[in-house]
Amino acid sequence: MLRFIKKTSKTAGLPPGTLVHIGEQSEDKVRVSVIDYSESRFTEKEIQDINEALAFRQSPTVTWVNVIGIHNPETIGKIGEGYGMHSLVLEDILNTGQRPKVEDFEQYIYLVLKMLSYDVVNDEIKVEQVSFVLGNNFVISFQEKQGDVFDGIRDRVRKNKGRIRKMKADYLMYALLDAIVDSYFVILEKLGDKVENLETTLLEKPSPKMLQAIHKLKQDVLFLRKTIWPLREAINNLAHSESELINESTGIFFRNIYDHAIQVIDSIETYRDMLSGMLDVYLSVVSNKMNEVMKVLTIIATIFIPLTFIAGIYGMNFEYMPELKWKIGYFAVWGVMMLAAVVMLRYFKRKKWL
Amino acid sequence: MLRFIKKTSKTAGLPPGTLVHIGEQSEDKVRVSVIDYSESRFTEKEIQDINEALAFRQSPTVTWVNVIGIHNPETIGKIGEGYGMHSLVLEDILNTGQRPKVEDFEQYIYLVLKMLSYDVVNDEIKVEQVSFVLGNNFVISFQEKQGDVFDGIRDRVRKNKGRIRKMKADYLMYALLDAIVDSYFVILEKLGDKVENLETTLLEKPSPKMLQAIHKLKQDVLFLRKTIWPLREAINNLAHSESELINESTGIFFRNIYDHAIQVIDSIETYRDMLSGMLDVYLSVVSNKMNEVMKVLTIIATIFIPLTFIAGIYGMNFEYMPELKWKIGYFAVWGVMMLAAVVMLRYFKRKKWL
Amino acid sequence: MLRFIKKTSKTAGLPPGTLVHIGEQSEDKVRVSVIDYSESRFTEKEIQDINEALAFRQSPTVTWVNVIGIHNPETIGKIGEGYGMHSLVLEDILNTGQRPKVEDFEQYIYLVLKMLSYDVVNDEIKVEQVSFVLGNNFVISFQEKQGDVFDGIRDRVRKNKGRIRKMKADYLMYALLDAIVDSYFVILEKLGDKVENLETTLLEKPSPKMLQAIHKLKQDVLFLRKTIWPLREAINNLAHSESELINESTGIFFRNIYDHAIQVIDSIETYRDMLSGMLDVYLSVVSNKMNEVMKVLTIIATIFIPLTFIAGIYGMNFEYMPELKWKIGYFAVWGVMMLAAVVMLRYFKRKKWL
Amino acid sequence: MLRFIKKTSKTAGLPPGTLVHIGEQSEDKVRVSVIDYSESRFTEKEIQDINEALAFRQSPTVTWVNVIGIHNPETIGKIGEGYGMHSLVLEDILNTGQRPKVEDFEQYIYLVLKMLSYDVVNDEIKVEQVSFVLGNNFVISFQEKQGDVFDGIRDRVRKNKGRIRKMKADYLMYALLDAIVDSYFVILEKLGDKVENLETTLLEKPSPKMLQAIHKLKQDVLFLRKTIWPLREAINNLAHSESELINESTGIFFRNIYDHAIQVIDSIETYRDMLSGMLDVYLSVVSNKMNEVMKVLTIIATIFIPLTFIAGIYGMNFEYMPELKWKIGYFAVWGVMMLAAVVMLRYFKRKKWL
Amino acid sequence: MLRFIKKTSKTAGLPPGTLVHIGEQSEDKVRVSVIDYSESRFTEKEIQDINEALAFRQSPTVTWVNVIGIHNPETIGKIGEGYGMHSLVLEDILNTGQRPKVEDFEQYIYLVLKMLSYDVVNDEIKVEQVSFVLGNNFVISFQEKQGDVFDGIRDRVRKNKGRIRKMKADYLMYALLDAIVDSYFVILEKLGDKVENLETTLLEKPSPKMLQAIHKLKQDVLFLRKTIWPLREAINNLAHSESELINESTGIFFRNIYDHAIQVIDSIETYRDMLSGMLDVYLSVVSNKMNEVMKVLTIIATIFIPLTFIAGIYGMNFEYMPELKWKIGYFAVWGVMMLAAVVMLRYFKRKKWL
Repeated sequence: MLRFIKKTSKTAGLPPGTLVHIGEQSEDKVRVSVIDYSESRFTEKEIQDINEALAFRQSPTVTWVNVIGIHNPETIGKIGEGYGMHSLVLEDILNTGQRPKVEDFEQYIYLVLKMLSYDVVNDEIKVEQVSFVLGNNFVISFQEKQGDVFDGIRDRVRKNKGRIRKMKADYLMYALLDAIVDSYFVILEKLGDKVENLETTLLEKPSPKMLQAIHKLKQDVLFLRKTIWPLREAINNLAHSESELINESTGIFFRNIYDHAIQVIDSIETYRDMLSGMLDVYLSVVSNKMNEVMKVLTIIATIFIPLTFIAGIYGMNFEYMPELKWKIGYFAVWGVMMLAAVVMLRYFKRKKWL
Repeated sequence: MLRFIKKTSKTAGLPPGTLVHIGEQSEDKVRVSVIDYSESRFTEKEIQDINEALAFRQSPTVTWVNVIGIHNPETIGKIGEGYGMHSLVLEDILNTGQRPKVEDFEQYIYLVLKMLSYDVVNDEIKVEQVSFVLGNNFVISFQEKQGDVFDGIRDRVRKNKGRIRKMKADYLMYALLDAIVDSYFVILEKLGDKVENLETTLLEKPSPKMLQAIHKLKQDVLFLRKTIWPLREAINNLAHSESELINESTGIFFRNIYDHAIQVIDSIETYRDMLSGMLDVYLSVVSNKMNEVMKVLTIIATIFIPLTFIAGIYGMNFEYMPELKWKIGYFAVWGVMMLAAVVMLRYFKRKKWL
Repeated sequence: MLRFIKKTSKTAGLPPGTLVHIGEQSEDKVRVSVIDYSESRFTEKEIQDINEALAFRQSPTVTWVNVIGIHNPETIGKIGEGYGMHSLVLEDILNTGQRPKVEDFEQYIYLVLKMLSYDVVNDEIKVEQVSFVLGNNFVISFQEKQGDVFDGIRDRVRKNKGRIRKMKADYLMYALLDAIVDSYFVILEKLGDKVENLETTLLEKPSPKMLQAIHKLKQDVLFLRKTIWPLREAINNLAHSESELINESTGIFFRNIYDHAIQVIDSIETYRDMLSGMLDVYLSVVSNKMNEVMKVLTIIATIFIPLTFIAGIYGMNFEYMPELKWKIGYFAVWGVMMLAAVVMLRYFKRKKWL
Repeated sequence: MLRFIKKTSKTAGLPPGTLVHIGEQSEDKVRVSVIDYSESRFTEKEIQDINEALAFRQSPTVTWVNVIGIHNPETIGKIGEGYGMHSLVLEDILNTGQRPKVEDFEQYIYLVLKMLSYDVVNDEIKVEQVSFVLGNNFVISFQEKQGDVFDGIRDRVRKNKGRIRKMKADYLMYALLDAIVDSYFVILEKLGDKVENLETTLLEKPSPKMLQAIHKLKQDVLFLRKTIWPLREAINNLAHSESELINESTGIFFRNIYDHAIQVIDSIETYRDMLSGMLDVYLSVVSNKMNEVMKVLTIIATIFIPLTFIAGIYGMNFEYMPELKWKIGYFAVWGVMMLAAVVMLRYFKRKKWL
Repeated sequence: MLRFIKKTSKTAGLPPGTLVHIGEQSEDKVRVSVIDYSESRFTEKEIQDINEALAFRQSPTVTWVNVIGIHNPETIGKIGEGYGMHSLVLEDILNTGQRPKVEDFEQYIYLVLKMLSYDVVNDEIKVEQVSFVLGNNFVISFQEKQGDVFDGIRDRVRKNKGRIRKMKADYLMYALLDAIVDSYFVILEKLGDKVENLETTLLEKPSPKMLQAIHKLKQDVLFLRKTIWPLREAINNLAHSESELINESTGIFFRNIYDHAIQVIDSIETYRDMLSGMLDVYLSVVSNKMNEVMKVLTIIATIFIPLTFIAGIYGMNFEYMPELKWKIGYFAVWGVMMLAAVVMLRYFKRKKWL
């Protein structure tokens, strides 16, 4: 549940633009690394003081400042000051309860979205907020923790693979975004496998435990949908942005991510429909089983209750009961009972209960 | 229920613009306080006569007139006259059944919305209508009762904290609005905690009482949704307003509130979906339990009813019943019974009822 | 049901613009009354011949022609001719199955909507179609029957209360419309009371009769929704009309009605959601009760059926049944039975059935 | 079912514009009749050769070519050639699986929609596709079978009733369309009567057969909705068409049909909601009855099962059972039984089962 | 399940534009055939080297390059290079998890959609991704496997049937698209037949197996909907494209396909509604049957349980039971039993259970 609503009430009453970290607490030091490159040059270093990063600002090379850990408002505040970011942007970066969105501040573009990963140990989806600030020749990325999906990009920049070193900062931003959206497919596949397994089990041997499993998957899908849905619009804005920070030739790449985001949402919607369908099927299966149980009870009861009644009759101790004296009495009663049972069974057969 | 529909029928038949208070009655005196400030000056006083407030109108300083209590149409009428407000605006201020909306009258902007607070004693959400009138250098706020979420703002103005004293009336209005929207998150958290608790309980030990709890939460969510949904559009209009009363640099602050409002609505929708899912789960759990009850009944009945029948047979008093004379008769019957029971149990095991 | 679909098939096959009355038949004479006023003058009379009304057309005063009864196509036809109305407008006035709508014919504006009243005797909502034709200095209103919500307006015109005598025909039309929309709130309150009562009863003592009550209320809400929903768009068109018949200063009044119409629709939607929720709760409550009934049956049956079987065993008449001879046989059997019962009860307690 | 999806797979693989009839086969000869008129002249004849019809094309009179039977692609092809129609239009005319639509080809406008009639014998709605081609001075109508709703129009043209002979071809087209849409109301009334009857029966004496009736009506409503929904947009396009073929003064008539189409759709939606509501009520009623059945069973069983157990106890044949010797034993047992029964009944009364 | 989500996670981490095949693996060689034609000339050959195809590019004739098999990224890469296609287009061609879409790159238009076929053996719908690249005088089509719906088009080109040889590349593209959309109707018919059969069976003899059948059909419909829905927008974009690659006279043909696509989607929606309705009916039927079963049990049990109790009474062995001595005792008991049974039966009749 906590993952749905962040404790944003912490800021209630504070002046807007106050820098307060909202999210998981952490004791780790905030780490800042800088990668600076052009087609011919490449520098990478971990920095202690944000001013080191600012030194790269004047040069025409592309600078990627990667901030790991946002639990220290002061550090974020310094970076924001150095790069001339609006205090509301800094507030958003620190508050991990953001919806994915894009905001164009002319001098820079602010983008915030969620990075998802699958925690195999606890069998749950983990979510981390990632913010990007795209300037004319820099990208600053803010993530909550060590560990991300950007290693491929770091590698491509280091080894000058593909076109990345030839392109501007907007392409770097695209590459980072693309890595995150691609990682959604990994989560989708995990979810898809679970839905598939559940469906197979559902039709083969449904059990009450499945209800919880379906419910949990539905919550996961709900959560994914809430997390990714607004991204669609945000990326669309980016793809059709008229900002000077985004070159026309990069537009097509953003449209490509937009297509991917729509594929993800489409799949989520499909899973939602499938899980709803499965819940219906589960309930019907349960209802069918109950029906079957009832039929067995009814058949047994309706056959034996009348027979027991007949037996009861001749168990009475009246002194004058003529049938009791008859020699064939006992066998006649058996005959009547057999007949009654056969009639009942035929009736059930006609009713299709057997 | 009363909170859903205000008794607005009171005005039916009256001429439009007639000032009638619609809402909770109160005996409290209407209190009017004025805060007037510029970057260098600051005045705060409680006034008896609205003309005192009007005196500040000519000066370039920002004036915040805070009206507490709207149950006295005359006072409101006088304020409206003093500030040149349309009679329909006054009607809206007095009628607490308004939907959140913004109306631009060129000389001033009228904004109405709901302030929510959580009443711990009665465990219910309390709602109060707040109206704002933003003029070129004043903000008039109307609230129903003493007690609000504006103390932080008063403090910031008094002590010249943050940028508020440097800004115009539109920023004051933003700050007030921001305080209200921030307070929604507090309500959301309360609601979120309840939903979370309910869900935990649901899967651990569901009880018929949960149905009422789910139902009550659903009504609360319905109510919040109805209250906050229209706010989204109203704030959006404000953020993209072309009114001269809102400076361009304040626009970004209103867009920030807009983002918050969307976050709130998103969470409400998520809660709605979760509660629907929980109702489904609850019903399934109930149905599962019923199934289990039925199975126990069926197993007991189907095993013992036939056995009782057999016992009944040999309880009959026919004079000629050969089995009764047999020495092993009694034990044979026990044998037959055991066999029948074993067959039944096997059948149930195969059917997965045991 | 009749109220949902009018017998409009009556006109099938007739040429368009044929004047046929579709609606409740009536034997009453059609009454036409005229109120003519300017700021300084006021005339009111009931007229016999429509030409009397036409006499007022040239004067600059505002004329309100109120036609009560539309079951006489000839009278309507004459009025239509006198005021130059299109034959399709007349067809619409006569056909009481109209959806609320506004049509702008440049020379005049045609508006049709429903007037609702609550019939306490039959405990049902009564609906009446009202049409307005707004010309440059006249309003013609057509209603089905004697009795309306316009008395307040007549009074204000007669006694020159408020601004109505100072304004043009468009304001008169607004006042009439406002009176009708205000009357919707009265219906809403009645409905709201019923929904509230039902909800209280539902949670305290649900009974099968509630199902019908919920169903009937749902149909009422459905009906109201169908009746009022299209009004929203119609009034919006009016509020933003560029027709010369509507003065700019009246626009704000129409926007005010628009807000009211949205409030009405909002409340209707809320009731709809609440009633759906109540149906769910009702079904769950019924299901819970059934569950309880089943439990009682199961507990009784599963305790006594095995005991009865044991009793049956020792009721058998075999000659050789050693236990029967034992002195403590009878008491031993009682002991076994007690034990069985206690085991069963413990089992039920563990299962939380008791 | 067949009525939902036409066997359009027949054309799969054929070149576009290939003329293949898709629909019900027929052996009837295709009949073509021509009505040609102006305000002063009128000609009507059944023609054998399409060239006869073409002769009227040059004259300024309005020509209505009515083609009855579309199962002969050759005839349709000839007409299409004569009037210069696009091969795709001809393909659409022949394929009875069209959605209602309007297409503007500048020289002519193509309109296709469904004509509905109620087959009393089989108690089902029959549907027929009607296509119109409106040229500058002609209307060609294509229908599947003899028998239509146009007799009133033929009569009006013949006898020069109303304005039809004074107007152009667009008015003729309007009149034809109006006749079809008017006929929808007849179907709606039939449906409305059925829904009304069903609802009355539902609350008075529900039976399992009602389920099928509700289901069948729902399918009918689904079918009507699918058939009529797209018409709304098509007629709207026509009403706001900028084509020179439609005179400005005819626009208002098309808007009138548009209003009618919306009324029809509104009613269909209302029926859909009502039927859904009825299904819910039906299921609840069934569930209530089941509940009642269960209660009776439970009451009888829980009263008599323990009593039967007591009787069973004293039917045991133990030699040493002291109670059996007591003189008041028998009566004491009766007393205990009575007491047990009374206690049970009280319990049921408290539980509100009786 | 696999068909819903392709294993697109394979590309996660790779640079954008990396050519990786995502889809079913295949060992078949990629085959490329070229058809080149103008009104007077026609060439068809299977080529080994893509440069052979490039030779046709300069000539004004229309060239159709048909690539069968997309599992070899190298071949696709070469073709892309030869025709100057963007690396993202090539990535999309290779990734079979695309949503239908159209992208306009000025020099060429890229279109991707799904080709469906019905696999009779496994009774399932098979899906294959088809991509088209339309240039000024060429169409390149990419399909996954041998076997398609284009044979009719090949034939028409070869034999110069219809208008295809007279038209440009855009018409060829239209013809290919039309063939695919026409083939959807074949799938729809298959599905329609199944839905029809299921419905007939449902009302005649419902069985638990139907639930699975309904569920499977619902998943199929869900799948079709997901596959075809986005196509509607894509074709609409094409029909109203302002690209110079699409001649104005071809626009009407694309609008025709658009109509077909809407028909397909309409039918899918209808099936969805029908299947939902059928699920409701199925559940009700099951519930009705259960009700009937319960009634039989209740009737039998409530009649015989009291009778058995009476018999039990007189089976007791009390020494002093006066009735046992009565001569008519036995017959009196029978009388009482008969009476009790008759009373019960009457009660059931009044309750309408019999």
